[in-house]
Amino acid sequence: MTDLLGDMKRTHSCIELGESHIGQDIVLMGWVQHRRDHGGVIFVDLRDRKGITQVVFDPSISETVHEKAQEIRNEYVLGIKGKVSARPADMVNARMTTGAIEVLVDELRIFSRAKTPPFQIEDRVDASETIRLQYRYLDLRRTQLKNNMIARHKTTMTVRNYLDAKGFVDIETPVLTKSTPEGARDYLVPSRVNQGDFYALPQSPQLFKQLLMVAGFDRYYQIIKCFRDEDLRADRQPEFTQIDMELSFVDEQKVMEISEGLIKAIFKNVLDVDFPEPFPSMTWAEAMERFGIDRPDLRFGLELKNVSDIVANADFKVFASVVKNGGLVKAINAKGCADFSRKQIDELTEFAAVYRAKGLAWIKIKEDQWQSPIAKFFSDDEKEALKQRLDLEPGDIVFFVADQPKITNEALGQLRNELARRLGLINDNEFKFTWITHFPMFEYDETEKRYQALHHPFTAPMESDLDKLESNPLEVNSRAYDLVLNGIEIGGGSIRIHDSELQERVLKCLGIGKEEAKEKFGFLLEALTFGAPPHGGLAFGLDRLVMLLCREDSIRSVIAFPKTQKATCLMTQAPSKAAPAQLQELAIKTVKPIE
Amino acid sequence: MTDLLGDMKRTHSCIELGESHIGQDIVLMGWVQHRRDHGGVIFVDLRDRKGITQVVFDPSISETVHEKAQEIRNEYVLGIKGKVSARPADMVNARMTTGAIEVLVDELRIFSRAKTPPFQIEDRVDASETIRLQYRYLDLRRTQLKNNMIARHKTTMTVRNYLDAKGFVDIETPVLTKSTPEGARDYLVPSRVNQGDFYALPQSPQLFKQLLMVAGFDRYYQIIKCFRDEDLRADRQPEFTQIDMELSFVDEQKVMEISEGLIKAIFKNVLDVDFPEPFPSMTWAEAMERFGIDRPDLRFGLELKNVSDIVANADFKVFASVVKNGGLVKAINAKGCADFSRKQIDELTEFAAVYRAKGLAWIKIKEDQWQSPIAKFFSDDEKEALKQRLDLEPGDIVFFVADQPKITNEALGQLRNELARRLGLINDNEFKFTWITHFPMFEYDETEKRYQALHHPFTAPMESDLDKLESNPLEVNSRAYDLVLNGIEIGGGSIRIHDSELQERVLKCLGIGKEEAKEKFGFLLEALTFGAPPHGGLAFGLDRLVMLLCREDSIRSVIAFPKTQKATCLMTQAPSKAAPAQLQELAIKTVKPIE
Repeated sequence: MTDLLGDMKRTHSCIELGESHIGQDIVLMGWVQHRRDHGGVIFVDLRDRKGITQVVFDPSISETVHEKAQEIRNEYVLGIKGKVSARPADMVNARMTTGAIEVLVDELRIFSRAKTPPFQIEDRVDASETIRLQYRYLDLRRTQLKNNMIARHKTTMTVRNYLDAKGFVDIETPVLTKSTPEGARDYLVPSRVNQGDFYALPQSPQLFKQLLMVAGFDRYYQIIKCFRDEDLRADRQPEFTQIDMELSFVDEQKVMEISEGLIKAIFKNVLDVDFPEPFPSMTWAEAMERFGIDRPDLRFGLELKNVSDIVANADFKVFASVVKNGGLVKAINAKGCADFSRKQIDELTEFAAVYRAKGLAWIKIKEDQWQSPIAKFFSDDEKEALKQRLDLEPGDIVFFVADQPKITNEALGQLRNELARRLGLINDNEFKFTWITHFPMFEYDETEKRYQALHHPFTAPMESDLDKLESNPLEVNSRAYDLVLNGIEIGGGSIRIHDSELQERVLKCLGIGKEEAKEKFGFLLEALTFGAPPHGGLAFGLDRLVMLLCREDSIRSVIAFPKTQKATCLMTQAPSKAAPAQLQELAIKTVKPIE
Repeated sequence: MTDLLGDMKRTHSCIELGESHIGQDIVLMGWVQHRRDHGGVIFVDLRDRKGITQVVFDPSISETVHEKAQEIRNEYVLGIKGKVSARPADMVNARMTTGAIEVLVDELRIFSRAKTPPFQIEDRVDASETIRLQYRYLDLRRTQLKNNMIARHKTTMTVRNYLDAKGFVDIETPVLTKSTPEGARDYLVPSRVNQGDFYALPQSPQLFKQLLMVAGFDRYYQIIKCFRDEDLRADRQPEFTQIDMELSFVDEQKVMEISEGLIKAIFKNVLDVDFPEPFPSMTWAEAMERFGIDRPDLRFGLELKNVSDIVANADFKVFASVVKNGGLVKAINAKGCADFSRKQIDELTEFAAVYRAKGLAWIKIKEDQWQSPIAKFFSDDEKEALKQRLDLEPGDIVFFVADQPKITNEALGQLRNELARRLGLINDNEFKFTWITHFPMFEYDETEKRYQALHHPFTAPMESDLDKLESNPLEVNSRAYDLVLNGIEIGGGSIRIHDSELQERVLKCLGIGKEEAKEKFGFLLEALTFGAPPHGGLAFGLDRLVMLLCREDSIRSVIAFPKTQKATCLMTQAPSKAAPAQLQELAIKTVKPIE
């Protein structure tokens, strides 16, 4: 048996003790980080959530305690009573907060023994992620993960205090609900009371928060789990957390102003970083033009230049015909990289191919000539124009993609990010925000031969574009906005449609008829007929935001108990088989999947 | 089409304006609470979340605006621009915060029209709950429900700020997880990626919070949705919210001290009520003795008295034989109620029968005699002893239940509550708390012929009772504690087992062998072998707590979008049919239920 806590009461945490405590009797409790014997004395680094203190078992203080301390191993859980003492001058550890003192122990309780952990609880760990997920409670003991969780807590506390002060009401919306038409796949929950029916876990509380505006709550927020049954190829989780907000009687400027203040408050509280200037803002069209993608990383330059007009009549038929067919030719000048090897260029070409670019043309600018398979196709005038447009100087290499606008932009936009990574242009300690506004309302889905909402079907069109809704839907901009940080979208939202007639018009543009609309979200359409205020909102992805705050590469590092890419929990073995009786009560059965 | 928000910006809420604003130009936005025409002028009570302001459309100010205002009906959503003006002296409404002023409107925008709502948006509503749940967004416009939601928000903000200040870290635990062995029925979620397997929605984050203690987080909290697929006969919801806490290196006193401070902070912040004294505390045994149930309502007396010793040898064989067979005879003296009619007594007898009491004996104490079918069976000594024990005085009526202890206590305990309701002894504005401690560790389940955990299998036994664990389990007390308010359990918790050997002993007492334990929660048992701190915690039911704070009778009144007793959402029509393709992807199908 281990020792009981009994009447022992902790007096301090393991980070607090310093020279001012010398001579005091104190009680510490924590884990054995490290134990060493030196000259018949046992030294233990005792660790709790806050820090580490050296505690000393010296037989000259208590032989029985020293004897008992022989048993101690790493990760044992101890309670010790003792006197704070100055360390000998040559033993002072200036790198430790408590490095000037140690505790001479006169009472020891061993609350818990510990088997040798499958990996060392150290700052740097080389165990596989599989083993670390299986023993997540051990991995969470490491400073890095522990600090991530605390940063997450600080983030949410900041959100709550900031929004509370601005008059937002935290209202819980249901988890067992009806499928929301957000596009992604729902998680279903079979109903026992209503056999044959299913609840869906929410992909977002979108409709509920709009109904709360109809109910008059004016300013709502919630930090809420959302669920998407997607293939987890990217850094996604089946359940993720949103900071979800909605406001009545506001325009996009107001939503953005409050959201921006919130993000600034978080960075101030969690990282002590100030952003005195307003975040920059650009339209979606500008982002596409300059960066090729709608979430530009502004920590570096390498902007895309449209050279379609210059090459439209060039002898290089690949470029000319693309332009002729409504495509785009854009280029990036990688300054000073004219020494890129054939292998490097091939790698970049393969990279661009992932984004469907059929090729990656390039020109190296040498002192005396342009070195390139395609240089010969350009006239002197075209060369001069390219030189001006792209600021070409000796030592540069310029990359071209020529394709349909969507492919040109995405391939070159991604290439821009890749080049920045390879060239070391990214400062990991920099945070560059930008708002993106004026998104197109619709995009045309070639496969389904119909328009899709770029945001979601409840996003309002720009008031000035209302008359183009039916006649020219691709020209209609929406009142949506995204906030981008270091090339990652951390939040987005829109002003919503609050007029039931306009909502029906937009649904019709999306090919959703009255019957289907009624079936899917008739309750929202009906609510809009009982007095709905103008309203809009925004949601931030908490996991991604905290990931960026903690300078982590994966959201798994900022989630206490994440799932694998196969949506399993390696610690609890979820999901698992259900008992036959459970399925019987739900009136469902499992079937052999169709191959 | 309705009007656009455009450049109109709200300057004030509808509760703010008073005499100090007279002469100012302001903008209000809100709903039409009421409209009346008087002398060619239109008066509208404009309502927003905060309050109501009277706005006036006078043709002498603007004929076009007055003309447009003709269209206004109840629940229309308006934006108005106008000048604050003093009301004529005889029109001042002292009962309204803004009753001294009105706003003379010179610009009107109609943001949204409203059909006639299915019920009036008034403080008192006589519509059925069915129609109110269907149009929940309209019901939430009523002051009562709106204030309940705001009280809920204040409650959770208080919890977060209080616990943050005490060093608790808010950590999210998974929603898609493995079945926790809490006894109730799980909601299952079929997995698509791992076909044939199921996640369970958590009944509580019990195991995860214990793992967070093993991980060293020391103080954890979370306000979290939990799920139980129970029959909703009582005032239950499929999803409910817990304030969930766990602490390391503490005993029950510390957990109770922090929890009590939390509850006091909530009552202070939400209701401005102080509780300067510590909450009383009684053992489970005392609660059963004095009140018959473990959640006594202390707002009134009517305590139960055990008279088994007095009646053990009485000629009244019913009593005597119950005592002989290990039963209990207990009584309540309803003072001054000797004039209860036969009908009243019959009703109480029926009430007691619901709790399985086979009869309800009674004696009316008259000036000159005891009037009762059973009085004749008692000797003078027995009568004198009953008189002393029960403080019998002329005008009293005393009720007896004689049965096995569990039945006697529960029937008479419930009768005590019923008598208090009938006699008007309950002060609705009073809040009486008590802690209940020293619960039994186990109870014997006659049906399953085995011991069950009264709390849950991870609750620690009293350290002083450890040696009785195998030899006399029913005598073992646990380190569990409940907090009871006005007869309702609002929270409960325990010190947990942190020693894997002790955990296995307790599981063995419950008839859970090593294999079953490993299968169900092997990850917890394993975690306890890697260094687990002594720890304990508590969870409050947020819904019930807010219900009591708001003096509501049902938790549905403090949940924004509650479900019916059949677990359906009348507004969204959840649950509903799933598409065949969805079920196919999940490799499940619905089957005809077994009758």
